[in-house]
Amino acid sequence: MTDAPSPTASAPILNPDVVAAPAPRVLLQPKTWRRFAQGAPWAFSNEIQMDNAARKRPPGALARLCLPEGDPIALVQFNPHSLIAAREVTRDPAALEAGAPPADWLEARLERAARLRDRLFDAPYYRLIHAEADGLPGLVVDRFGDLFVVQANTAGMDRLAPRIDSALIDLFGASAILHRFDSPSRAPEGLPQRVDLTRGDLDGPIKLAENGCVFFADPMAGQKTGWFYDHRDNRAFAARLAAGARVLDLYGYAGGFAIPAAKAGAERVVTVDRSAEALALAARAAEANGVADRVETEQADVFQSLERRIAAGERFDLVIADPPAFVKARKDLKQGARAYRKLARLAASTVADGGALLLASCSHLVGEEVFLEECRRGLMEAGRTARILRRAGAGPDHPLHPHLPESGYLKALVFALD
Amino acid sequence: MTDAPSPTASAPILNPDVVAAPAPRVLLQPKTWRRFAQGAPWAFSNEIQMDNAARKRPPGALARLCLPEGDPIALVQFNPHSLIAAREVTRDPAALEAGAPPADWLEARLERAARLRDRLFDAPYYRLIHAEADGLPGLVVDRFGDLFVVQANTAGMDRLAPRIDSALIDLFGASAILHRFDSPSRAPEGLPQRVDLTRGDLDGPIKLAENGCVFFADPMAGQKTGWFYDHRDNRAFAARLAAGARVLDLYGYAGGFAIPAAKAGAERVVTVDRSAEALALAARAAEANGVADRVETEQADVFQSLERRIAAGERFDLVIADPPAFVKARKDLKQGARAYRKLARLAASTVADGGALLLASCSHLVGEEVFLEECRRGLMEAGRTARILRRAGAGPDHPLHPHLPESGYLKALVFALD
Repeated sequence: MTDAPSPTASAPILNPDVVAAPAPRVLLQPKTWRRFAQGAPWAFSNEIQMDNAARKRPPGALARLCLPEGDPIALVQFNPHSLIAAREVTRDPAALEAGAPPADWLEARLERAARLRDRLFDAPYYRLIHAEADGLPGLVVDRFGDLFVVQANTAGMDRLAPRIDSALIDLFGASAILHRFDSPSRAPEGLPQRVDLTRGDLDGPIKLAENGCVFFADPMAGQKTGWFYDHRDNRAFAARLAAGARVLDLYGYAGGFAIPAAKAGAERVVTVDRSAEALALAARAAEANGVADRVETEQADVFQSLERRIAAGERFDLVIADPPAFVKARKDLKQGARAYRKLARLAASTVADGGALLLASCSHLVGEEVFLEECRRGLMEAGRTARILRRAGAGPDHPLHPHLPESGYLKALVFALD
Repeated sequence: MTDAPSPTASAPILNPDVVAAPAPRVLLQPKTWRRFAQGAPWAFSNEIQMDNAARKRPPGALARLCLPEGDPIALVQFNPHSLIAAREVTRDPAALEAGAPPADWLEARLERAARLRDRLFDAPYYRLIHAEADGLPGLVVDRFGDLFVVQANTAGMDRLAPRIDSALIDLFGASAILHRFDSPSRAPEGLPQRVDLTRGDLDGPIKLAENGCVFFADPMAGQKTGWFYDHRDNRAFAARLAAGARVLDLYGYAGGFAIPAAKAGAERVVTVDRSAEALALAARAAEANGVADRVETEQADVFQSLERRIAAGERFDLVIADPPAFVKARKDLKQGARAYRKLARLAASTVADGGALLLASCSHLVGEEVFLEECRRGLMEAGRTARILRRAGAGPDHPLHPHLPESGYLKALVFALD
């Protein structure tokens, strides 16, 4: 048998997990077994008895994680070289007994995730798989109709990539599949960076639907999977404040905030971004939604654009600032927090009396409280008082594992200013 | 002049604050002035130099709150008998200079709050004033079209009640005004409990609009103001999960969750509440929205109803549990937390495979993390695994003061169960 069937095969394939059953045992440490036992979906490498056998396991292969006394507690994908050494696949007693998950476990979880999204959304444009919370640790799949963009961020999911492709074809009739295997989180798993179109064609930007608008995204060359579904509900909320408003949309990317705001009746929307490619997609979306006469784009550094506008006395009724992560590593925490504060100060200075301000952070290292505090200070430094209208994270196609609430990386705060 | 003009007068009235200007000074303590200076909207009584003059100030009258050295920092409503002794009215330098807020400060804040709501909602059914966050400490006003239900929970607002009435008439054409001055939070302010209809008529339940549905509420005899606008967005979210579902709606009150779920296509909705009056309102709403054939009511204790249903093997695709506050005082924290856990366990036990569960808490003493932990444990005790689809608070007509994020009393968690 092989672990790498043809990625475009649509015939049922043998389940490598079943063939290899029962999975070998790996033991938790006597002092640190409780965290995992109480429900955490991960065991860290220092929580595991890393003997020679364990160290030699192929990265990402299935293992039976056991209590220090030997009782199996979960089937996991095990990577001895990663800080997060074990990632839960199942704790189901029957699977533990068999030493392998049911033959169709991966397919069943894909189906379950799709059923949930199809209950929530009226068109197949959403994050289909959000890793741990969907029972598929390390796997992200964004769906754009019949195109599926896959991120396998762990050795366990990287091994299963061919099988994931097959399942996407069998279950959802995927006509195109793109592997965006270029996330920085692959490095700690010992995985190389690569981008492969494993099925179908992809010529330039694709079309997608969100919040009653049409957008264009570039899954091949854009950031992450090409589109950020996570802000869907925050974009809808911002649009509720946009009727008749002058809107400044900072880090506007491909128009996710700008277009619904214009469609909701904004008098004028200015979208600022450093990327000419992103702004071209936003402009194209403005055309497609019939709001091109009210959407302007500016290719600029956001801080410089803000300083120019403040100096010129420009004011807007709604300002949106959704920057890239200012904090990507712990060592950036202090400087990143200052950047959020500065952005809040400058953005607030362009808000007209009685206007609104949406500030977002996608730095997973910056918690909600810290982000709120920096926003609060920025507002204070700008001499503005305000109330919080909304505190939200990502939409429901980005569910959270109950034992990993910190995986809620996205924070959005909407303020109404005096 | 008098502090109590006729509550139904619609002619402009003299501003008692202006006549009394400049407001007398009250000093912050040398060791504890910073919290207020940094933006908190309250100063506690132990943060204030409570000399004889301060102690004799009429409860709720305006004062100039000063730094220990004597520089004024804010105009406040001051109640020497309350734990929260000073509540910010304004820090505007011109007002501090004058020793009084602008003559129309209260009216201006009512107008600002209404402008914000009218941007967000398409009909005048909302929380118009949410206390501190709307610059009107201790004041709550729920609007039902031309009826305004007022809660004055502090001595400062109690003094201004006649003026608030006049403003509601002048600004919004209030045809009926109800004072629900019976909140337990009035006692620490030294205020009596009373309910008065100060304008217009109110004969039994009134009609209101929310989430595209019609509801009935009883502002005179119902809980709080008769309706809970805070869950509006959570109700809309629950309805997105309701198509084709069997829905169990616990503590259903007047149907806020049940009716939109039925209208969204639920196969069957069972609403459980102890109050026959509330269930009658829910049943009437079911009729008015054309879903009476799919909405059942059960007058019962929720825990008993759940235990019966579990014993009978009943299962639902969507279960909603929005109980009254289980924790009303610090001494109840432990017992209340156990009650949330038990409710989560029993409610989860009635959720069908692949179904959803909404759990809410309105206990302001129970933080988000604690509530999540109790829900998580309840699910675990029920042997159910799940992911979090939504973490939310109240809707945007319940804004938060940025320095009082803990005033976000409402927590709603939506889980998708395996």
